[in-house]
Amino acid sequence: MYNEKMYKLGSNRSVIRELFEFGKGLAEKVGPENVFDFSLGNPSVEPPKKLNQSIIDIINTSTPSQAHGYTSAPGDVTVRKVISKQFKDNFKFDISENNIFLTCGAAASLTSTFLALSEENDEFIVFAPFFPEYKVFIENAGAKCAIVSPNKKMGIDFDDLNKKFSKNVKGVVINYPNNPSGKIISDEQLNTLCAFLTKKQQEYNKEIFLISDEPYREICYGNKKAPFVFDKYDNSIICYSYSKSLSIPGERIGYIAVNPHAKESENVYLAICGAVRSQGYVCAPSLFQKVIKECYNLTSNIDEYKANRDLLYNSLTKYGYKAIEPDGAFYLFVKALEDDANTFSLKARKLGLLLVPSDSFGVKGYVRIAYCVSNDMIQRSLPKFKELIDNYDKY
Amino acid sequence: MYNEKMYKLGSNRSVIRELFEFGKGLAEKVGPENVFDFSLGNPSVEPPKKLNQSIIDIINTSTPSQAHGYTSAPGDVTVRKVISKQFKDNFKFDISENNIFLTCGAAASLTSTFLALSEENDEFIVFAPFFPEYKVFIENAGAKCAIVSPNKKMGIDFDDLNKKFSKNVKGVVINYPNNPSGKIISDEQLNTLCAFLTKKQQEYNKEIFLISDEPYREICYGNKKAPFVFDKYDNSIICYSYSKSLSIPGERIGYIAVNPHAKESENVYLAICGAVRSQGYVCAPSLFQKVIKECYNLTSNIDEYKANRDLLYNSLTKYGYKAIEPDGAFYLFVKALEDDANTFSLKARKLGLLLVPSDSFGVKGYVRIAYCVSNDMIQRSLPKFKELIDNYDKY
Repeated sequence: MYNEKMYKLGSNRSVIRELFEFGKGLAEKVGPENVFDFSLGNPSVEPPKKLNQSIIDIINTSTPSQAHGYTSAPGDVTVRKVISKQFKDNFKFDISENNIFLTCGAAASLTSTFLALSEENDEFIVFAPFFPEYKVFIENAGAKCAIVSPNKKMGIDFDDLNKKFSKNVKGVVINYPNNPSGKIISDEQLNTLCAFLTKKQQEYNKEIFLISDEPYREICYGNKKAPFVFDKYDNSIICYSYSKSLSIPGERIGYIAVNPHAKESENVYLAICGAVRSQGYVCAPSLFQKVIKECYNLTSNIDEYKANRDLLYNSLTKYGYKAIEPDGAFYLFVKALEDDANTFSLKARKLGLLLVPSDSFGVKGYVRIAYCVSNDMIQRSLPKFKELIDNYDKY
Repeated sequence: MYNEKMYKLGSNRSVIRELFEFGKGLAEKVGPENVFDFSLGNPSVEPPKKLNQSIIDIINTSTPSQAHGYTSAPGDVTVRKVISKQFKDNFKFDISENNIFLTCGAAASLTSTFLALSEENDEFIVFAPFFPEYKVFIENAGAKCAIVSPNKKMGIDFDDLNKKFSKNVKGVVINYPNNPSGKIISDEQLNTLCAFLTKKQQEYNKEIFLISDEPYREICYGNKKAPFVFDKYDNSIICYSYSKSLSIPGERIGYIAVNPHAKESENVYLAICGAVRSQGYVCAPSLFQKVIKECYNLTSNIDEYKANRDLLYNSLTKYGYKAIEPDGAFYLFVKALEDDANTFSLKARKLGLLLVPSDSFGVKGYVRIAYCVSNDMIQRSLPKFKELIDNYDKY
């Protein structure tokens, strides 16, 4: 009487959500000061001050229908022009507002892109470790999700990519800084990937898309930079979200940008218009379309995440943990103290440490620590991490 | 290289949008004062004063993460509790917050409901005249859209319903006050429909859902009332939106309510959770979730729409037009002055009157006049309507 696949998706809560709910229960029992919830990627740093001010300014200076009315489906043209200017300012790249489509956030960008591109028997490649919802979104579009294993540094294992690749591949998804590893792809690996895809396009005489999911684009540390794919590979699409850069994850605002040099880029864009329409997305939230225009090139204070990273990474490695040093985002990927990450995560719970086991990210034997939390909570959690590794046999 | 169906959906602009764009071009040529754009259902009446004030209050009194952070996927529980209270206050109906799911507006409510319910070979019945996107949304869920013709009063033709019904029907969609006719179903017809569905459930030994799309629920005139289906038929789902009642169509906020007396209502709700998730809807816009809570039982000033209806309906019928008298919403369905509504609409354009031909609503020979416009524009348009009917041969 209902769709079984949807029922399963709705009833099998993700591991991350399950852990988050467990933490809320635990806090009631043992007190919130004894729970160290590193489960969710919910930005902890406040939005730039201008954000709330711009909301007030917009509603005070616009008519209600300018502020809250329908925009055209791809979004207010003045907002899209500002994003097009941002590509020019930040990447010296020319893109028209007609290649940019405002969406209800990164997830909407991705589902619409997969739906727009997918034809029968299509596959999309994802690189482990990867954000688990990619698989859900790809399968929702009727396509297959093929998973490529990582190399030891959590980079791309090109041997495995070559093995998993077939003539059915319509696109590959990359995500740097990466959730869950925090890694940014090296220039060398990115060049190798683009050359590989170019070769495969020739071999199969078809277009293969590079889809770059970039919600953490601005959250990079030191001199690390997120890659810009449009001038490296023509058949490429960027899926962006303001959730993390402006700390407004609940407001659902982002965009899709189609590389103007992609083959038939105009038609690909129209297919995206159709995919958005068929899913009932009508338009991106109207007020926040204007808010992102006012918050041009602003971000939350990234230094706070960097301080968290330094504290957590330096402390944990000093205690003897093995971890991937994050280049960006706000996740630390730590090797579990035994083979089974789920068992390790259960043992860590006993000390109030909520760490997400890596299995759903497509990799075994790790946990993800989301350090978008207060620095104080990290400080207070450190003795627990030390106790866990020093006396692991006890747990 | 892309999905053809999505490309077609994206490139075949709807008739309504096409007319709207034509109007903008015409306004540049002949001046906006000579264009009478009745194409779009964009609310013209201002939101209640409290709406913008509540936005300011929320951002001034909450932490940024309370105001703009992720909520749980079904929506903030305090907001859902208020909606559950509203069912009690307004309809004396008991429903828990766990049967209510906040969505990104009516379109999202509908796509998620169709996707949650659809199994192989399923069909959904829509009653002409109907909102054209229903067909897009139903087909997006992999189901078939079967269209039942109206009777002469734009009500349900039960003979045709009986003819079109089959064992494949998973649900029927109703929408009162109706877009485009403005009609509200009579108690008698609604009772007949519910009895028909109950009989068919027994005949086929399966559940058949009544899906009530209610974006215009509050916009009713005189003593007319929108039907409340939950106490008439158990296997029912309400899809609601605040776009029209609060005049915030761009903000994308609404809900799905699953009748707690529906068979396996909890599992139907979980299937909806899955459908929402698979489309990447994450959560309804966070700030506006709280705004609708603050605007409990408020609406824009419906009297302004009523004044428009009275002026337009009375004048046009006086001139000799045949029209369906609207019970609610803000649309007038008028008989074209010749068989082909498209030709009629093109002739009306010559006088600057932008009227949507009825073909895409599943009925031939009518036009839809969206009177969610200024009363002044209606006043100024009246001589044009008179001229059109008095000298139709000239056009």
